[in-house]
Amino acid sequence: MITEKISRPTLLLDKEKCLRNIERMVEKTNRNELALRPHFKTHQSHEVGRWFRNYGVQAITVSSVRMAAYFAADGWEDITIAFPHNVHESEKVAELAEKIQLQIVVENTASLTYLSEYLKHDLSVFIKADLGYHRTGLEIEQKDQIDAILELIEEHDYFQFKGFLAHAGDSYDARSTTGIMEIHERSLAKAKAFRKAYQADYPEMIISYGDTPCCSAAEHFEGIDELRPGNFVFYDLSQWHIGSCSLDQIAVAMACPVVAKHPERGEAVVYGGGVHFSKDRATNEQEETYYGLLVEPLEEGWNIMESAPIMKSLSQEHGIIKAETEWVEQLEIGQIVFVLPVHSCMTADIMKEYLCLDGSWIRDVMHLH
Amino acid sequence: MITEKISRPTLLLDKEKCLRNIERMVEKTNRNELALRPHFKTHQSHEVGRWFRNYGVQAITVSSVRMAAYFAADGWEDITIAFPHNVHESEKVAELAEKIQLQIVVENTASLTYLSEYLKHDLSVFIKADLGYHRTGLEIEQKDQIDAILELIEEHDYFQFKGFLAHAGDSYDARSTTGIMEIHERSLAKAKAFRKAYQADYPEMIISYGDTPCCSAAEHFEGIDELRPGNFVFYDLSQWHIGSCSLDQIAVAMACPVVAKHPERGEAVVYGGGVHFSKDRATNEQEETYYGLLVEPLEEGWNIMESAPIMKSLSQEHGIIKAETEWVEQLEIGQIVFVLPVHSCMTADIMKEYLCLDGSWIRDVMHLH
Repeated sequence: MITEKISRPTLLLDKEKCLRNIERMVEKTNRNELALRPHFKTHQSHEVGRWFRNYGVQAITVSSVRMAAYFAADGWEDITIAFPHNVHESEKVAELAEKIQLQIVVENTASLTYLSEYLKHDLSVFIKADLGYHRTGLEIEQKDQIDAILELIEEHDYFQFKGFLAHAGDSYDARSTTGIMEIHERSLAKAKAFRKAYQADYPEMIISYGDTPCCSAAEHFEGIDELRPGNFVFYDLSQWHIGSCSLDQIAVAMACPVVAKHPERGEAVVYGGGVHFSKDRATNEQEETYYGLLVEPLEEGWNIMESAPIMKSLSQEHGIIKAETEWVEQLEIGQIVFVLPVHSCMTADIMKEYLCLDGSWIRDVMHLH
Repeated sequence: MITEKISRPTLLLDKEKCLRNIERMVEKTNRNELALRPHFKTHQSHEVGRWFRNYGVQAITVSSVRMAAYFAADGWEDITIAFPHNVHESEKVAELAEKIQLQIVVENTASLTYLSEYLKHDLSVFIKADLGYHRTGLEIEQKDQIDAILELIEEHDYFQFKGFLAHAGDSYDARSTTGIMEIHERSLAKAKAFRKAYQADYPEMIISYGDTPCCSAAEHFEGIDELRPGNFVFYDLSQWHIGSCSLDQIAVAMACPVVAKHPERGEAVVYGGGVHFSKDRATNEQEETYYGLLVEPLEEGWNIMESAPIMKSLSQEHGIIKAETEWVEQLEIGQIVFVLPVHSCMTADIMKEYLCLDGSWIRDVMHLH
């Protein structure tokens, strides 16, 4: 029983579920003749990265220059940094471009101007396309700004225009597959406008498309060349609420020791708080804000429970479980409970190590951002 | 200018403000003839810990066994672990009790029963008193449970009853000094009931009292022997909203490079997201949810701004600033902005390093929980 290995808050990883999540996405991209360039910011681990390699994945996405260097060190030779270029890291980007096939993302000319001072090797440049999420990127109507960037790319020997990179992050507001599909269709239509406007001049350009909800729920991706989902490797309660996955597909759970019982108010206290889970929250069908959902520990893994207790609040180290009085009464002090996290990317980022169900540890996780 | 040292999201520490925060609390406890046992979970740094030592502080509070070991390694010889004892760490607690004066906190007999199997040295035991916060602890009415713990302590040679440890955490719901004081007075009255019930039998017992809001706002602490605030070392926007501090007393700020500008929608994007700030949020007077407040960078430190822009949302690495169009327009790509965090404990816990205003780094921060 894996619980025997646990004495403190521990992030469990069900490798089988994780591999199925990877395999499903690999098969979908193969069926659709799309490139898959998974985002590694979710797991941040060399070992989990190699699981992708075993499925034939050769190219990856990361969210920082440090993360690019971290995975380049494990043999990844084709990396996209999917974050608007930070001019203060121009020198490091230039160094990395010397070693691997590197793509960066920009949405203004200023960042390229800085970079050009350091560059001594080819560097592929994506322009960030805003398909309606309005976090970063340029809309198709901002033609002057797009053209100014393209002009700068043309002028400079080392810059190569790679295409448009988009992230339909408004899919995170969906609460059903239908909701996701509406955003997906709208985003595809907008992506098509980018292709229409620029393909004649740049026949080699690609359109890269991200976000776990659309990549999970949709079956067709007309006009898209590459998918960059990340969270799907583990999924989580947020993705379940959005409609991207079932509870059974969530591949990580926090294991926490019970330290106090308060059956009179239907609560138990576990060792496991904000410094373990992160403070991301979700809202359930009863309109309760919550931070995790309890699952039943099994010999190998866990089972989804009916009317499962929830993690109703988190302090720095305390997690407060809300449950029926009877459920709290049967708990024993020291018992290990399993909790599905709301946002696996943030939980994994904080925990920085995984305990697999076979008892092995994965500790090759990037430490400082 | 400190900004010249910054190329990535960086947690700035204004040592002078921090020292004044420490000094103010030291003076208050001295005036009131109270012991001060500051909680070190906020800064988690050996060096910041030594600043306390320079003010004569000898005893500290931590939130985990690992944190106790981390500070014991830097010469702290009197440590309270203010978290309900996790039975799986009984052996480690017993080992630590051999080396230093250690206090643990319990609220049930089960945890002591486990511990007694490992103990070979004296260990002081606090019973957690619930003064109305209802997170952990026993209420004065739960006499049978309190007496059962006391009986177990009496039976066992190595256990010493230290007293009652309380945390009036409901003060975090206050939104004014008056609000804090209401909770403080109610908590003091409840603490008095514990003293009245048990002092005759345990004349040496103490009452330990925590929480930054009450310790910051109150001037008198009748019936209390020891204060254990933690967050006050840095303060943050949450404490400002509660009424514990002024904005000027906040001693930490995140420094983040601007990576994108969207003046047309009054937004700028900085490099600095949930993996840097944590996802703790606050609500301002305009009823907006927000994740940070911008301050004006100075040659040394920062200035509070009138109608300051806010950090309106955080993704994993992106921070989205909401501001007037004109303010966004004058920003330059690569410019470093300073942002007060909502919850300094969580931000410091994630960042794990501080840049002081004199350009020196503090990197001796505990890494894994």
